Amino acid sequence: MSQTTNHCYRLRHRPAGTVADDDLEFLQEPIPNIGPGQALIRTLWLSVDPANRIWMSEVHYNMPPVPIGGIMRGFGIGQVVESLRDDMKAGDLVSGITALLLGPLGRTGVTAYLGVQDIGRPQPGETMVVSAAAGAVGSVAGQIGKARGARVVGTAGSREKCRHVVEALGFDACVNYRDTDWREQLDAATPDGIDVDFENVGGQILDHVVTRLNVGARIALCGLISEYNSYGSSAGQQARVSVDHILMSRALLRSFLVLDHTDRFPEAIAYLAGLVDEGKLRYDETVVEGLENARSALNQMFEGVNTGKLLIKVAEPL
Amino acid sequence: MSQTTNHCYRLRHRPAGTVADDDLEFLQEPIPNIGPGQALIRTLWLSVDPANRIWMSEVHYNMPPVPIGGIMRGFGIGQVVESLRDDMKAGDLVSGITALLLGPLGRTGVTAYLGVQDIGRPQPGETMVVSAAAGAVGSVAGQIGKARGARVVGTAGSREKCRHVVEALGFDACVNYRDTDWREQLDAATPDGIDVDFENVGGQILDHVVTRLNVGARIALCGLISEYNSYGSSAGQQARVSVDHILMSRALLRSFLVLDHTDRFPEAIAYLAGLVDEGKLRYDETVVEGLENARSALNQMFEGVNTGKLLIKVAEPL
Repeated sequence: MSQTTNHCYRLRHRPAGTVADDDLEFLQEPIPNIGPGQALIRTLWLSVDPANRIWMSEVHYNMPPVPIGGIMRGFGIGQVVESLRDDMKAGDLVSGITALLLGPLGRTGVTAYLGVQDIGRPQPGETMVVSAAAGAVGSVAGQIGKARGARVVGTAGSREKCRHVVEALGFDACVNYRDTDWREQLDAATPDGIDVDFENVGGQILDHVVTRLNVGARIALCGLISEYNSYGSSAGQQARVSVDHILMSRALLRSFLVLDHTDRFPEAIAYLAGLVDEGKLRYDETVVEGLENARSALNQMFEGVNTGKLLIKVAEPL
Repeated sequence: MSQTTNHCYRLRHRPAGTVADDDLEFLQEPIPNIGPGQALIRTLWLSVDPANRIWMSEVHYNMPPVPIGGIMRGFGIGQVVESLRDDMKAGDLVSGITALLLGPLGRTGVTAYLGVQDIGRPQPGETMVVSAAAGAVGSVAGQIGKARGARVVGTAGSREKCRHVVEALGFDACVNYRDTDWREQLDAATPDGIDVDFENVGGQILDHVVTRLNVGARIALCGLISEYNSYGSSAGQQARVSVDHILMSRALLRSFLVLDHTDRFPEAIAYLAGLVDEGKLRYDETVVEGLENARSALNQMFEGVNTGKLLIKVAEPL
């Protein structure tokens, strides 16, 4: 018996801070009929990303904001149920946006690759700092830094995560930013200053990192997860960085977006697959079961609950 | 009759804000005897640069701070009076730091060249903004942008300067940042957004520029003259820029220092000389007579009094 209803979230209000229950309404709706050029997809997996929170705000990042009343979007993998397209047939697995992978060889891994290889370019003996080191992108970025011969120091939000980052992922050190003396710990872990920063967080961590930049340092600006929850509030888009320190260290700060570089995916995936083969790239996932838990999972990501990629398992393939 | 005394400024206190009279003491001292490997130079011209103010603070930029009690330094041109060096003989003209030029083919011109050609890279049809457009570096940067085919919009601190920037230097528009509606004027002058920012000022101007960055924009961070006078005060080194806007526009922000690139001087000077030959590079100087006026000239530069390069004429050649 085929399914006749679709579960979805509709955006009712742009959140101020953490996503509240009534910002995203969880609904069961009839499945619409498909038209020419369309296909009906059964979502199997959803990726939970900081971008989800940005799309709920009025900020235009990689895509326009989700309109009020619109269905919330996400990156995911699904299975074709019915198709009026030549390039898809029932039973095919498809993926929104990019490759058919949500793991280290997918979008998050390629993001880490581009930031490290194109912007950070850590050299043997240099020191690289990675914020959100236990997260999906940071964990891969740091391991690429190690593979390039750099000293790699992470920051993460718990003692357990820091232990994991050092013992399982092979970082040289990891500082728990919830410790009151985290700045002193970061200083001690970067005795020769900082040559590369792979920035996922922003806020106080970035503020401190820029005070320790060596001449010619590179900051790969991947994300500012500490800030997105302020979008929509009066404090929105107020993340700021000391530009004096960037001036004085003749540093480079560069933002990038993986979706601008789809032509680089084959090269990136080949590199990352090589690291996996050599045992140099380990990857973690935190799986949450059920679409009805997606909203709370997103909020938990901002609280730093997950280690590695946070995924929603929506359904089994048919 | 040879001169027996030397005029100099000694740094007595690190200034808080504008340089006060007793921060720099103007003195007449006996000329020391030169030793092996030394030469005695008669200073003819001094260049007044934002760097002078940085050197009085505790900030280590391109050189260590001038020590308290030490003689204030500057870039300049002089004439050899007496020499115990094989590479200099009496009567030679010499220059501190770089080439024997303080004008557009010297250090300031090369600074503009590096920032535009290496970082900003404006393309035909793109929009480039230059702050301190009537200043020594900004005036050259904007003219290089025009030569590359970009729409070039300056900011400057008076109606007269803005008129000069448009009419004499050929910028497409120039906004007087002392007008209360300067933001609206800048928006109107950059209807297609901003692709390149050649940043000399920082502060509110940079704050506004980053809100108008197009995807893939480049900011050549040359200086932050609005900030240097705060060095040494409690607000020191607090210049900040919105990093959200840089993230969202996938922009590049890069600082650079001309003294790191002395190998590029021949290339840069050849390019700039070519522009001069083609009538595409006009250059202005503001000359102040007498070393005793150097301190007030420096303060006036921070108030935006000069157009083009600010020079102190110290002495005539012998």
